[in-house]
Amino acid sequence: MTQSVPPVDMKFRRHPERGSTDLELAHSVLDEGLVCHVAFELEGQPYIIPMGYGRMGNKVILHGAIASRLLKHLAGGAPCCVSVTLLDGLVLARSQFSHSMNFRSLAIYGACERILDPEDKLTAVEAIVEHLIAGRCADARPSNRKELAATEVLSLELEQFTVKCRSGEPIDKKVDESLPLWAGVIPLRLQAGEPETDELTAPGQRPPEYASHYHRFNRR
Amino acid sequence: MTQSVPPVDMKFRRHPERGSTDLELAHSVLDEGLVCHVAFELEGQPYIIPMGYGRMGNKVILHGAIASRLLKHLAGGAPCCVSVTLLDGLVLARSQFSHSMNFRSLAIYGACERILDPEDKLTAVEAIVEHLIAGRCADARPSNRKELAATEVLSLELEQFTVKCRSGEPIDKKVDESLPLWAGVIPLRLQAGEPETDELTAPGQRPPEYASHYHRFNRR
Repeated sequence: MTQSVPPVDMKFRRHPERGSTDLELAHSVLDEGLVCHVAFELEGQPYIIPMGYGRMGNKVILHGAIASRLLKHLAGGAPCCVSVTLLDGLVLARSQFSHSMNFRSLAIYGACERILDPEDKLTAVEAIVEHLIAGRCADARPSNRKELAATEVLSLELEQFTVKCRSGEPIDKKVDESLPLWAGVIPLRLQAGEPETDELTAPGQRPPEYASHYHRFNRR
Repeated sequence: MTQSVPPVDMKFRRHPERGSTDLELAHSVLDEGLVCHVAFELEGQPYIIPMGYGRMGNKVILHGAIASRLLKHLAGGAPCCVSVTLLDGLVLARSQFSHSMNFRSLAIYGACERILDPEDKLTAVEAIVEHLIAGRCADARPSNRKELAATEVLSLELEQFTVKCRSGEPIDKKVDESLPLWAGVIPLRLQAGEPETDELTAPGQRPPEYASHYHRFNRR
């Protein structure tokens, strides 16, 4: 089912100092991210779908409605690119030209494989829920046979990938260093607010710890 | 230079209630986002590049090094998809299957046009800086002729686009509504920390207001 995927040219031509193929770094970006962007081409047109995802070992787990036209295309083994980008800060330099962002960004190239066995599917969709909010699977009702049958579950191995990162201070040109201007970094991170309890929850029932103290680690 | 772009099938098949082609909504997603993901195909392989961007009226402004191989491809009028995704919250339902995310996501389909006139380029790169941090252009040194010549600046008109949004409470299946489980939403937003002043800034010089009180609006 899987089409052969051409080798990707992954040479870091621009800012080679920002490029990496470190697998541990790639995993850490996946583990901190919540949304990935999945790109593929269909009839000459590139598409992007933002998706929640999970990680199982060296595989990214994606899922969606089995009836989805775009997901069918991915499930058919179309070449794709999955990108996860973490924005760590805005970099304010003395020249507009040297403005930048601090970020960690992963791009994985390949073709997805379908997960078809119901037990494996169950494990994979649980990995997605646990990725979004660790601890939730112990509470929430697991997916049943019918729900699993309606769900396409895909995996993409991290074989061809690149990680690009920028961190730290602005880097101004020598000639700009003496400009009497504030420069520096505005750090950014995803922040969880107070959980909003839904109307069906019993009055007085408090949100579980994983919801009331939700946070993503922010390794910079 | 611009290739003709095939009309994109933008029918909302899955969750049609989440789909929109409202231009004002599309602009608001662009205005709040900081990073877009740009997808295109090259030699049979889809690529994604995360980029900062700006908006000028109904156009998204992209830029990068003029020597970049991938940017050259975009500048050549390759069909592309530009996506901006704002994550507003995690939606914890009573079943794992009904877990979801609150989000606003824009996908624009088309082909970029090059901005070549130096005055227009200057205006466009300033729009990118101002998009990231309003007020900065009044302080930072503008780009000079040499810097502009080294920068490829592209625009993409919002003609073919879709916006998808989800907001509000979890939607559980009837049969799950009585499960004695906390359910609700964990709101998420991008939060700026204290500005980190760089080493070249004069001792005692305070960050400007736009850095010390940086925030993205969060219209949900």
